Amino acid sequence: MPEATANIGVVGLAVMGSNLARNLASREGNTVSIFNRSYEKTQTLLDEHPEAEFVPASTYAEFAASLTTPRTAIIMVQAGQGTDAVINALTEVFEPGDIIVDGGNALFTDTIRREKAVRETGINFVGAGISGGEEGALNGPSIMPGGSDESWVTLGPILKSIAAIAEGEPCVTHVGHDGAGHFVKMVHNGIEYADMQLIGEAYDLIRRGTGKSPAEIADIFSEWNRGELESYLIEITAEVLRQVDAETGAPLVDVILDQAGAKGTGAWTVQTALDLGIPVSGIAEAVFARSLSSKPAQRAAASDLPGPSEAWTVADADKDAFVEDVRRALYASKIVAYSQGFDEIVAGAEQYDWDIKKGDIAAIWRGGCIIRARFLNRITEAYAADPGLVALLTAPYFAEALTGTQEAWRRVVVVAAQAGIPSPAFSSSLAYYDGLRADRLPAALIQGQRDFFGAHTYKRVDKDGTFHTLWSGDRTEIESAGSSH
Amino acid sequence: MPEATANIGVVGLAVMGSNLARNLASREGNTVSIFNRSYEKTQTLLDEHPEAEFVPASTYAEFAASLTTPRTAIIMVQAGQGTDAVINALTEVFEPGDIIVDGGNALFTDTIRREKAVRETGINFVGAGISGGEEGALNGPSIMPGGSDESWVTLGPILKSIAAIAEGEPCVTHVGHDGAGHFVKMVHNGIEYADMQLIGEAYDLIRRGTGKSPAEIADIFSEWNRGELESYLIEITAEVLRQVDAETGAPLVDVILDQAGAKGTGAWTVQTALDLGIPVSGIAEAVFARSLSSKPAQRAAASDLPGPSEAWTVADADKDAFVEDVRRALYASKIVAYSQGFDEIVAGAEQYDWDIKKGDIAAIWRGGCIIRARFLNRITEAYAADPGLVALLTAPYFAEALTGTQEAWRRVVVVAAQAGIPSPAFSSSLAYYDGLRADRLPAALIQGQRDFFGAHTYKRVDKDGTFHTLWSGDRTEIESAGSSH
Repeated sequence: MPEATANIGVVGLAVMGSNLARNLASREGNTVSIFNRSYEKTQTLLDEHPEAEFVPASTYAEFAASLTTPRTAIIMVQAGQGTDAVINALTEVFEPGDIIVDGGNALFTDTIRREKAVRETGINFVGAGISGGEEGALNGPSIMPGGSDESWVTLGPILKSIAAIAEGEPCVTHVGHDGAGHFVKMVHNGIEYADMQLIGEAYDLIRRGTGKSPAEIADIFSEWNRGELESYLIEITAEVLRQVDAETGAPLVDVILDQAGAKGTGAWTVQTALDLGIPVSGIAEAVFARSLSSKPAQRAAASDLPGPSEAWTVADADKDAFVEDVRRALYASKIVAYSQGFDEIVAGAEQYDWDIKKGDIAAIWRGGCIIRARFLNRITEAYAADPGLVALLTAPYFAEALTGTQEAWRRVVVVAAQAGIPSPAFSSSLAYYDGLRADRLPAALIQGQRDFFGAHTYKRVDKDGTFHTLWSGDRTEIESAGSSH
Repeated sequence: MPEATANIGVVGLAVMGSNLARNLASREGNTVSIFNRSYEKTQTLLDEHPEAEFVPASTYAEFAASLTTPRTAIIMVQAGQGTDAVINALTEVFEPGDIIVDGGNALFTDTIRREKAVRETGINFVGAGISGGEEGALNGPSIMPGGSDESWVTLGPILKSIAAIAEGEPCVTHVGHDGAGHFVKMVHNGIEYADMQLIGEAYDLIRRGTGKSPAEIADIFSEWNRGELESYLIEITAEVLRQVDAETGAPLVDVILDQAGAKGTGAWTVQTALDLGIPVSGIAEAVFARSLSSKPAQRAAASDLPGPSEAWTVADADKDAFVEDVRRALYASKIVAYSQGFDEIVAGAEQYDWDIKKGDIAAIWRGGCIIRARFLNRITEAYAADPGLVALLTAPYFAEALTGTQEAWRRVVVVAAQAGIPSPAFSSSLAYYDGLRADRLPAALIQGQRDFFGAHTYKRVDKDGTFHTLWSGDRTEIESAGSSH
C-alpha cells in the first residue's frame, strides 16, 4: 500500500479527467493521486506528464491509501450507471468525513439521490458542475459544486486553486447543498443552447439578407466582440466562420452538415422548467431547433413547401443598419434567455430549499465556461442592487437595454417572417417579452374555455373567490369551492 | 355476498366516475356495479339515478362478487397514489383473466409500470385515456385504451357501447399495448393546449387590431365554425365570448382573471417529446404561455417595459381582410400543432414498440373529445393514402392548405411583432414551418461551435465520416472515431 501523500485524487482518466488531474497537479500545494478502471490510461498519463508527479493507483484500496484525510476524490466518468459503480467502490474504501465529488454532467435529481445515499455512510458526496470543456478542465474551468458545508471546507481551497480566474476572483462558489451545483450547471447549459441558437439565427439572417460571405460575417462578429456582446461564444463564432476547408476551398461552415447534435442537458433544462412551471421558451426553441435540424427525412419531404413569393435582400445602403438591427435583436434575445434561466434557478432554489446567491452564479460564469461574457457583471450587479429581483429583464440596466433594442428586435422578427428565414429563438424571445409586459393576456379566454368544457373554474379581476358558469344550465355564475376536474 | 350480475364495474364516483357509470348503465346489455371508498357517494348516486339500476357494493369483496367473469372494472380516481391503492385492492379480489381499467389521466410510464406489475398476477391491466370532460363521460367520450389483445375482446364491446359516435363509428380503438392509450391521450391534450393558445392569439389580435367587441368576435368564430376550422373548441370559443357577466354587464372574458391554469398533461407532452427528440415547439409555447400568464409579480414588474412607439389599428377598409388573414394563420398553425403531435405519436410508437394506426387515432378524435374537428378526417385520409408519411404537414392536402395560407400567416406574425401583441404559438409555428423547409440551417454553425469548444466533431455534406478540426492546434481537419465528450 502506498503512503498517504496526495491531497486530492481523480478517478476516470479520459480527456476531461486527465486534463483536470493535470490542472490540479500544476497548482502549488496539490499532490494528485490518479486511478482508472484499466491501468493502461493511468500509465499513459504518467508517461506523458512526468512533471505532474502523479501518484498512481491500480486498485481502489491503493487509491484510498494514497490520499491524506479527509480523503477527497473527483470522479470524472461518463454520467450514468458508471458513476454509481465508482461511487459504490469509493464508499467501500473511504471513511466518514471523506469527500467524493462527481464532476460529470449528472442530472441533479440523480445527485440528490446519490448524496442522500452516500450521506448515510458519513461520507460527503458533492455533485459539481464543471464547465469549459477539455481546455477549461486543463487551464481553469468554471466550477459549480453542491454538497455539504463540511465538504466545502476542504474542497473549496482545492477547487479555487484550479478554477478560472475572472477579474481576480476564482470562478467557483459553494452553490448550495446536494444537487444545487448540478442544477445550476444544467441551467448554464440551457442558456448555452439559447445563446448558440441566437448566434446561428443572427448569422443566417445576415448571410441571407446581405449576401456577405462567412469571412465577412466573421469580421462582424469580431467587431461585436468589442462591445456589449463580448463573450466566448461570439469570439469562437468568428473563428469558425473564418475557417476555410482545406479540401474544397469553401468556408468550413458550408461543408459542415447542418444537423446539430445534443448531449441532453438542454432538454433537461426545459423538462425541469416544465416541472417548476417556469416559461423557458427561448431555451426550448433552441433545443427544438437542434432536433428539427436532425430530421433529414422530414426536411427532405418538406423542402418543396412554399415560402414567400418575393425574394428578399437588403439594399446595399441599408446593410449596415440591418446588421446593427440584428446585433440589437441578438442582445435583447440574449437578455431574455438569461432572464428565463435565472427564473429557473430561483424556482429550483425555492423548490429544493437551496440558498443560491444569484449574483455569485453570474460571477463564476465570467470565466472558464462556455457562456462567459462581459454581460455577466451586469447580472451580478442587478442582484446585488435587488436580491429579490422578480425577473432579470426588469432590472434597470436590462430594462434600459431592452428599451434601446426592442424596435430593432421587432424589425428583425418582421424581416425573418416576411423572408421565410426560420428564427424561432428571436421570435419566441420577443413574444415572451411582449407577453410579460402585456396588460391583459388571452389567458382569460383560455380560462373561459377550460371552465366551459371541464368546469375547471376561473377567478375574477374584481373580487376574490373561484367561480364557475353553469354553461350547460342557465349560464348563471356560481361560486365554487375550488378547481374541480 | 351479492350475486354476480354486473358485466362492468366503476370504482370512484366523483363527477367523472358517476357520469361514466350512468353512461354505461344507459346502454343496452350493461349492468353496472358501483363502488366508492366512502359509501356516501355510492348511496347518493343510487338515490339520484334509480333508472340506472346500479348494483352497489360496500367493500372490494362485494364489488368483485357482483361482477360476472371476466370481471371488468374501470377505475375513475384522481391520478397518482390513489390509483395504485385501488389497483392493489382490486388485484387482491380479482382473478387471472379479469380486467382492471385505469380511466384517469395517468402518465403513460406509470401505466407501463402498473401493467407490468399487474400482468404478473394474470390479471389484465388497461390504461385508457378518456377525453371529453364531464359531459363526454356522460354522453359519449373519445376513449383511448391500451392493454393486451385479450382485454380488448371483453372491453371493446363495452367501450364501444358508451363512446361518442362520429359519422356512425364509435370513437374508440385499441391503441396498442400497455401505456399506448395514455400516451396518445397525453399527446391529445398537448394538441389541445396548442389549439386553445392559437385561438387565444387569434382573438387577441382581432380584438386589439380591429377594436371589435367580444360579442362581435364571437360571431366571427361562429362563422369560422362553418368552414374548415369547424371544431368543438371554435364553437365554445364563440359561446364564451358571447357570455355577458350578470354582475357587471361586461363581457365575461373581460371579467375573468387572465391567468391560465394547467393540469400537467401539456407539460408531459413536451417533456416526453424532449426525451424522444421530437420538436413540438408549438405545443411547448402554448404550455409556457399559460405559465407566463400565471406570474403576476413578474408581469407587474415588466408592465412598464416599452412596446412599439406607434399605436396599431387596422383601417376599417382592411378589417375583413385582416380577420381572414388571422383565420388562415390559425389554420396553418393548427396544422403544425397536429403535425408535431403526430410526430410524437410516431416516435413514441417506435420507442415503445406500439403498433399505433395513426389514421385510427385521428378517427376516434372526431367525436367526444375536446379537439374534435372536421379537420381530423383529412388526417385519417392522409395516413390511409401514405401510412409511412414522414410529416403530416407534407401530405398533399395539408401542403396545399399551407400553400394557400402561408402568406397570410406571415402577415399576421409580422403585425404581431410590429404591434407588440404576444403571439408565441403563431410565430413559433411559422418558424417551425420555415425551419423544416429550409435548404440549409445554421445548425452547421452550431456544429462548428460545438466542435470548437467541446471537440464534439461534425459530419460533412460531401462525404461520410466524422470529423474534427484541431482548433487549438494547426487547424487542420482530422477524421475522428466518433463524437467525444
